[in-house]
Amino acid sequence: MRYGVLGTGEVGRTLAGRLVELGHEVTLGSRTKDNPVAQEWATAAAGRAHAGTFAEAAAAGELIINAVSGRVALDALRAAGAEHLDGKVLVDVSNPLAFEDGQPRLDPVESDSVGEQIQRAFPHARVVKSLNTVNCQVMVDPGRVPGAHNVFVSGDDAGAKAQVTALLGEFGWPAARVLDLGGIRSARAVEMYLPLWLTLFRNSGSADFNIEVRRAG
Amino acid sequence: MRYGVLGTGEVGRTLAGRLVELGHEVTLGSRTKDNPVAQEWATAAAGRAHAGTFAEAAAAGELIINAVSGRVALDALRAAGAEHLDGKVLVDVSNPLAFEDGQPRLDPVESDSVGEQIQRAFPHARVVKSLNTVNCQVMVDPGRVPGAHNVFVSGDDAGAKAQVTALLGEFGWPAARVLDLGGIRSARAVEMYLPLWLTLFRNSGSADFNIEVRRAG
Repeated sequence: MRYGVLGTGEVGRTLAGRLVELGHEVTLGSRTKDNPVAQEWATAAAGRAHAGTFAEAAAAGELIINAVSGRVALDALRAAGAEHLDGKVLVDVSNPLAFEDGQPRLDPVESDSVGEQIQRAFPHARVVKSLNTVNCQVMVDPGRVPGAHNVFVSGDDAGAKAQVTALLGEFGWPAARVLDLGGIRSARAVEMYLPLWLTLFRNSGSADFNIEVRRAG
Repeated sequence: MRYGVLGTGEVGRTLAGRLVELGHEVTLGSRTKDNPVAQEWATAAAGRAHAGTFAEAAAAGELIINAVSGRVALDALRAAGAEHLDGKVLVDVSNPLAFEDGQPRLDPVESDSVGEQIQRAFPHARVVKSLNTVNCQVMVDPGRVPGAHNVFVSGDDAGAKAQVTALLGEFGWPAARVLDLGGIRSARAVEMYLPLWLTLFRNSGSADFNIEVRRAG
């Protein structure tokens, strides 16, 4: 399958690299055509790995992954172009995080979410929020963490969520561990989990953790 | 030990009832002296169970539990009186939740928390945020949920957190499952977890669940 991954940071490179390993054709998109990080990645990954602009990555991908920060996600997706997103599954793995005076701050928060912003701005994209609750190494290799820990999907399009669940399966997440939270509005819930994730990370010093939802019966 | 539990809702009655069962002397505090719910509870629980005003409950307790909604916590604690809180461990189990147009809304959120508000307003109380991440039935009986799921403590006073950890042990939470998140500022993290809790609750229809933090190594 052909993927467009937007964002050349650690998250984008990790997701794109794993997709190439899995046999997919991947274009890693950045703001500029000659982004050295993206070009180096494409050279190193070789073969099925390509570098391009946001628009080139979105045009090339059958499925698009937003891996830029939630703070700039709309800008990146506007640069990618609605015409390259319409009708496609668009996985948003971002968090709207910034640090102000050393404190994590989320924007939007609580009455809105990046997932919802993207769906509103691109009504014909099939937006699915997922994976933002774990570190990128865990995203593509959940076996780094013991136990039947969970990942979440939020989105208004059931077919899109099924496609993302299949992708998660390729990364190593069994379908039973993928919890469907409902419509894209539930992206608020997983984005607001970030402060707890950051607190647990700061206290342990390791990003190799996740939560498992335990239920009676 | 003598406990003052503020709030006659389901959370307050459940905590107070379990404390009486465990052999403690408990005063359940409400806004008014003649609150019928509190009086009925005290009559039913009998012996070590008492009903009173917020001030009477706070005066009677060696350890105080705030079990009113986070939205009215400061009002209840002002009614309780700083002179009855100073130097005491004050466990805040509340969430600043209200529903607006059917949507859960938190206030404060993100840049502040109820836990911090209480600590600022009552600087001589030894505030510990805990238990707000689970339903009240699970608070006092974690065995309702399978697995080594976790509860959190946040607070600036290490001795107070140790006392609360001991109390949690009486409720059935082994110390190894009590995760110390750090200072009272980390109350933000657990209060912002509430939307995820609510989403999981809505999707499953049962409040008998909790999260277990899974770590590598």
